[in-house]
Amino acid sequence: MDLKPLREEVLEANLALVRRGLVIFTFGNASGYDAASGRVVIKPSGVPYDKLTPADLVMTDLKGNLLAGSTLRPSSDLPTHLALYQAFPGVHGVVHTHSRYATSWAQAGVEIPCLGTTHADYFPGPIPVTPALTAHEIQTEYEWNTGQVIIKRFKGIDPLKTPAVLVNGHAPFFWGASVTDAAHTAEIVEELAHMAFVTVTIKADAGRLPDVLRDKHFLRKHGPASYYGQDLPVKP
Amino acid sequence: MDLKPLREEVLEANLALVRRGLVIFTFGNASGYDAASGRVVIKPSGVPYDKLTPADLVMTDLKGNLLAGSTLRPSSDLPTHLALYQAFPGVHGVVHTHSRYATSWAQAGVEIPCLGTTHADYFPGPIPVTPALTAHEIQTEYEWNTGQVIIKRFKGIDPLKTPAVLVNGHAPFFWGASVTDAAHTAEIVEELAHMAFVTVTIKADAGRLPDVLRDKHFLRKHGPASYYGQDLPVKP
Amino acid sequence: MDLKPLREEVLEANLALVRRGLVIFTFGNASGYDAASGRVVIKPSGVPYDKLTPADLVMTDLKGNLLAGSTLRPSSDLPTHLALYQAFPGVHGVVHTHSRYATSWAQAGVEIPCLGTTHADYFPGPIPVTPALTAHEIQTEYEWNTGQVIIKRFKGIDPLKTPAVLVNGHAPFFWGASVTDAAHTAEIVEELAHMAFVTVTIKADAGRLPDVLRDKHFLRKHGPASYYGQDLPVKP
Amino acid sequence: MDLKPLREEVLEANLALVRRGLVIFTFGNASGYDAASGRVVIKPSGVPYDKLTPADLVMTDLKGNLLAGSTLRPSSDLPTHLALYQAFPGVHGVVHTHSRYATSWAQAGVEIPCLGTTHADYFPGPIPVTPALTAHEIQTEYEWNTGQVIIKRFKGIDPLKTPAVLVNGHAPFFWGASVTDAAHTAEIVEELAHMAFVTVTIKADAGRLPDVLRDKHFLRKHGPASYYGQDLPVKP
Repeated sequence: MDLKPLREEVLEANLALVRRGLVIFTFGNASGYDAASGRVVIKPSGVPYDKLTPADLVMTDLKGNLLAGSTLRPSSDLPTHLALYQAFPGVHGVVHTHSRYATSWAQAGVEIPCLGTTHADYFPGPIPVTPALTAHEIQTEYEWNTGQVIIKRFKGIDPLKTPAVLVNGHAPFFWGASVTDAAHTAEIVEELAHMAFVTVTIKADAGRLPDVLRDKHFLRKHGPASYYGQDLPVKP
Repeated sequence: MDLKPLREEVLEANLALVRRGLVIFTFGNASGYDAASGRVVIKPSGVPYDKLTPADLVMTDLKGNLLAGSTLRPSSDLPTHLALYQAFPGVHGVVHTHSRYATSWAQAGVEIPCLGTTHADYFPGPIPVTPALTAHEIQTEYEWNTGQVIIKRFKGIDPLKTPAVLVNGHAPFFWGASVTDAAHTAEIVEELAHMAFVTVTIKADAGRLPDVLRDKHFLRKHGPASYYGQDLPVKP
Repeated sequence: MDLKPLREEVLEANLALVRRGLVIFTFGNASGYDAASGRVVIKPSGVPYDKLTPADLVMTDLKGNLLAGSTLRPSSDLPTHLALYQAFPGVHGVVHTHSRYATSWAQAGVEIPCLGTTHADYFPGPIPVTPALTAHEIQTEYEWNTGQVIIKRFKGIDPLKTPAVLVNGHAPFFWGASVTDAAHTAEIVEELAHMAFVTVTIKADAGRLPDVLRDKHFLRKHGPASYYGQDLPVKP
Repeated sequence: MDLKPLREEVLEANLALVRRGLVIFTFGNASGYDAASGRVVIKPSGVPYDKLTPADLVMTDLKGNLLAGSTLRPSSDLPTHLALYQAFPGVHGVVHTHSRYATSWAQAGVEIPCLGTTHADYFPGPIPVTPALTAHEIQTEYEWNTGQVIIKRFKGIDPLKTPAVLVNGHAPFFWGASVTDAAHTAEIVEELAHMAFVTVTIKADAGRLPDVLRDKHFLRKHGPASYYGQDLPVKP
């Protein structure tokens, strides 16, 4: 089983991150998960994007065991991806970038507040920041523990509605029903992070969007009462 | 009556917003109004810009009733556009974006102050910000009420001289004698918003432009005493 | 006398401002002065840059009288250019932009401080800001008075060594031995203004460059003791 | 001995700086050092990048004596490059830019703090800033003394692990095992400087990355215990 379509989708997501300016050099990675076969396809570690082919992508099982045909080492962040696939049912794509504005919020250790309807169109609240990892979490199975810190932070938060996190002092991770969705979210969040930077620079204590307006925007695009796009009949 | 030239102008305005970087994804919409026939042509909801054709645009009357030939749902912001056409005589084009700097001022809930002559060349004063919508306004006919809040804010302001507004916590709307004019104003305002951001970051209490200089610049480009451009004879 | 080479140089300088992103729409103008004939060639008012031809440029004498062959009205800022040519011997080119960062410093009413050697490589001190024009100066011969305010500000400053100014609340003017030089200075100053913005945002009270280091950099590129570039013999 | 490959590598590094937007006009220079022959190849002073050919590069010995075949004057910063080659064994390439964000930190006189893992992936600590040069250091052999101030600042710091410095009030210098490496570091540092600017603007007192996380990231990419990239076997 070669999962050719998934390999192609994962490759395309990795390349889209570069084209959109979210990744420079080898600062990022994207993976996809095929639930039926239990297989994960991920970018190899430290290989320049312009040389990547679908065959270079690394295939593992959900525990990170390399599967036949993989000739390169997987991204060193693989254990974080695996932790998210194991903990978040319905997630089939994970993306990690060091994009400039989202990473700056992560470095500041501050969640990206929901300051306007652009944000609320995509997220029902702030984009959370994790606590810092402990020295022990860093020194033992660092990448796996990065995933665990994210999972703990999402206790009580639906990861399918809030498909992004800032790892404290590090950078963002994104996920979604597919790796294409996760890469799209990466681009949206970078724009939200940039706007939030400008907003708090203009007014340090810019107010959070009122809950009622936040919910209005999130729900007009998401869920059973949504009325955005072309899914409803033209004349209801 | 197909209003083919208006459809083409509205399509071109929508695409210009994307080319100029004022709209990413489906974050925006532009419409045009043909006063003679009472018809409005607007972008469909949630359709990617690169797939839009003139025939995809949606045609309605001034109350929002879809007219024959429209096979797609209109932008969900249509009621805001209609409210502006109904209230502002002489306005035949409306544009909505989530462009980065203007939206950041809207998120900060702060009007864009008139800090220099670049601003005064286009606007006779600040670019107003609306009050926040009430919970009731949000929960009932939200998009129509967005228009009403704008209209109330413009009590005492000539909308043809100040063809832009920031909706609090949301983003800017622009309008004009044509949709082409409104799209041009969108680009100007984004530059003014960017400069105002830089200016107040350099000097938080940067003074407003004195009224006499503001009026000088506005009136040398607008109104009966203007002397900019090629409309006067070469030797007066 | 058609001054074809000067027309071509002035056209090229106007277009270079657009290509370098220093001018959007019709926000700027450049002129050249031929001292031998006493003639000035300037951009016409409000004509889009992509339509300009050398023949569209307007020719006047040093008092602003239109000369035969000019079919368009000159830039409304012509009197400012003329004032500078009359007062600053050796200046044969003037450029005016509303470029983003230099204009923001002008709007803040703050001179661009000499914060580093990049600045000192081009200017022997800060880039001055004028006082605000008085109401009377604005209401009578505004553009001519803009020039006068600049000239007064340069009392005691050598305009050939400091070839730029910020007009308070307005925007920068640049000049030089040729219009090509003035357009080059416009690009340098925009970069200096951008860096100064970043520097004072990092550290509000960033210290001015010590005089000795400022002079060292200015004088290694300018004047009799300069040793930059290829003007000296390879082995002194 | 013409060192053709080194000339080509040095030319390519100089051009890469321009392509990446790290150098505008003639604001920068790159050199390479061939330890076997004791020869240095450097950009000539003040020559526009688009006209440079490998033959235009200047060749000197480690004391700065021009070698046969050099017809242009070397970059005026040559003595700084020579000082670094003499003091830092293993360094075979030096790059100097006035790139916007790194230069702004230098102008602020503030080291670039290690605020996140993106930084720690490349540097084991902050990017140091030198003390200001004394008046005497500026007035006598300025460029050589610039190198000496860098070398003094690196007392106790391994220059091969921390291959960059901010010269106070001036701009950054970068170095490495090759000029290609030094130019790559220049691009990395500009991104780190930009992110650090955004981070401290969001949160003025953003905490330094904890030592244990800083070391984890630096050591997973550098040194004997590194496990990034494709140097280890696929199945350890």
